[in-house]
Amino acid sequence: MTNPLPQGATIGILGGGQLGRMLSVAAARLGFKTCIFEPGADCPASHVANAHIQAAYEDEGALRKFAASVDVITFEFENIPTSALDILEALKPVRPNRKALRVSQDRLVEKAFLNDLGLQTAPFAAVDDGVDLTQAMSEIGLPAILKTRRFGYDGKGQARISSPNEAEAALAEMNGAPSLYEGFVDFSREVSVIAARGLAGDVACYDPGENVHEGGILRTTTIPARLTTAQRTDAVLLAAKILNKLDYVGVMGVELFVTDAGLVVNEIAPRVHNSGHWTQNGCAVDQFEQHIRAVAGWPLGGGVRHSNVVMENLIGDDMDRVPDLAKDGTAALHLYGKAEVKPGRKMGHVNKITGPA
Amino acid sequence: MTNPLPQGATIGILGGGQLGRMLSVAAARLGFKTCIFEPGADCPASHVANAHIQAAYEDEGALRKFAASVDVITFEFENIPTSALDILEALKPVRPNRKALRVSQDRLVEKAFLNDLGLQTAPFAAVDDGVDLTQAMSEIGLPAILKTRRFGYDGKGQARISSPNEAEAALAEMNGAPSLYEGFVDFSREVSVIAARGLAGDVACYDPGENVHEGGILRTTTIPARLTTAQRTDAVLLAAKILNKLDYVGVMGVELFVTDAGLVVNEIAPRVHNSGHWTQNGCAVDQFEQHIRAVAGWPLGGGVRHSNVVMENLIGDDMDRVPDLAKDGTAALHLYGKAEVKPGRKMGHVNKITGPA
Repeated sequence: MTNPLPQGATIGILGGGQLGRMLSVAAARLGFKTCIFEPGADCPASHVANAHIQAAYEDEGALRKFAASVDVITFEFENIPTSALDILEALKPVRPNRKALRVSQDRLVEKAFLNDLGLQTAPFAAVDDGVDLTQAMSEIGLPAILKTRRFGYDGKGQARISSPNEAEAALAEMNGAPSLYEGFVDFSREVSVIAARGLAGDVACYDPGENVHEGGILRTTTIPARLTTAQRTDAVLLAAKILNKLDYVGVMGVELFVTDAGLVVNEIAPRVHNSGHWTQNGCAVDQFEQHIRAVAGWPLGGGVRHSNVVMENLIGDDMDRVPDLAKDGTAALHLYGKAEVKPGRKMGHVNKITGPA
Repeated sequence: MTNPLPQGATIGILGGGQLGRMLSVAAARLGFKTCIFEPGADCPASHVANAHIQAAYEDEGALRKFAASVDVITFEFENIPTSALDILEALKPVRPNRKALRVSQDRLVEKAFLNDLGLQTAPFAAVDDGVDLTQAMSEIGLPAILKTRRFGYDGKGQARISSPNEAEAALAEMNGAPSLYEGFVDFSREVSVIAARGLAGDVACYDPGENVHEGGILRTTTIPARLTTAQRTDAVLLAAKILNKLDYVGVMGVELFVTDAGLVVNEIAPRVHNSGHWTQNGCAVDQFEQHIRAVAGWPLGGGVRHSNVVMENLIGDDMDRVPDLAKDGTAALHLYGKAEVKPGRKMGHVNKITGPA
């Protein structure tokens, strides 16, 4: 499929969380239907989709049924089992492509890829055992973070090592999984670029947002970020470089550290990204629609912003603040319809419009 | 139910067209589930709803099932059969209430209601037969429009009478239905106020938009309308008067003619309104969310606008323009997912952001 997806075509989305939910709404807005593949019942995306195939990623029959019912496949998370991709790729276009997933599913591969592109990352070393760890500590220094190479998100699968006597416990926490030892970067702020690349190779980026994390979870994104014009340009060019190298189709989140020595890439996410939620109330075409446009072979939105926005995540008990937030006329609520409030669980976000861009 | 509707509650929507579709998305954004009642298969709202009960409005069993599965009921169109409302009202709160429907379902009742409130309307007379029509023509004059009292929308069920010899044909077009003879109003422009009233009686209005109709169908709405400050205030106060009198809960569209003798009410629609679609890209809380907030007993958004917008309907073959519109970075597309393009059919709309408010 290289022609633009026509009205009424169906976009298949792997994963039924809040990202799938907002992708589904964006797809509908462009006249597409959606089918969600998600093992969980009553998932957020299923509330706003045409169909929900509730099955495990190992269920070959369900995967085939899913592929047969859609025109193109995308995903809301990067840790899709390889076996599922093998089946789906043979049946329907999967966008973004396998290369982006391979790179971002493994922190070691990702950092090596970025360095090969000439981009800066935190100092890192592969750690499979205590010997590796001792060597990494001596080469890279302390403090540092030990992370599993795969399946990490929102601060999970990570252990901080501040002194050598914490090394053993950190290694134990990795539970034998191949890991990455990552040195700290001395940064003044964290920003991210939400970049998109279309089927024809065109690239469009939103202005970088400035992120504040708490406990490994994104707390707020503020637009515009406090960056010099040169930094802003660097950030966007750097993101475009990554997308082009991967022959990427869709939206990618590129997290950056701002340092005295330039921009350092923290990580890339081959999907719509929490730090891009502000676009829903700042732009005519938000990141979700931008992703759908790319995946559907449509022209990309330009990334132009009409308003400045502060996005705040509503995590766990933050939901108690919803009645008050609802009284603020400049606050746009986006709640995910999750049945249960849990500590650390992303329940929604609020985009506060702070003024014209 | 007087408490605010909690997260995860279900809002029932009668009607599955584009208005139900956009209401459903807005409800999801606030963490609600939705159930659509609509006789048609594969209706636009069903694509983004939790459930779709496909049944006739005369199907008592289906209506009861619908009522049992929702917490509150609203609607996207005013011509809901009385028998269906009788059943539903006894089971769950229906918002807006019956009074608003009674008034707006009958053009004669509506105009009398508005005049009783001290508001101006076009001159009118009830027409049931040729005798009535002859008298109306002589009293009100020509040209005029003969309209069925009930079930009209988008210019349907209407016949223009420019000279007495067109009277017979116009009457025949009414097909024996009780009708209304309506004189023309000499207006400089058409505007509309999208007004909302909450469960606690609070009222919030968006700034009036200026409408251009073609062939009885809304073509564009431009924000802001060309109005004096006094006219703007009058429009909003007048709308509030209507909502308060009806003890209304929800969003209402109030169409006005701007004349040298002040504002004349053309018609009221007890629902979200095509001329309020611009709010999706001009406000933090759009008319659809505003309606859901009212119906759910939540605080209303303030009606504040961050951007100026021109909304244009995409009617029938206008869909051929979508590929070009998709290339315009300031244009936000909203397509309805209707399977078939027909002449005169509303297929979508585009909100063009023209600048900060």
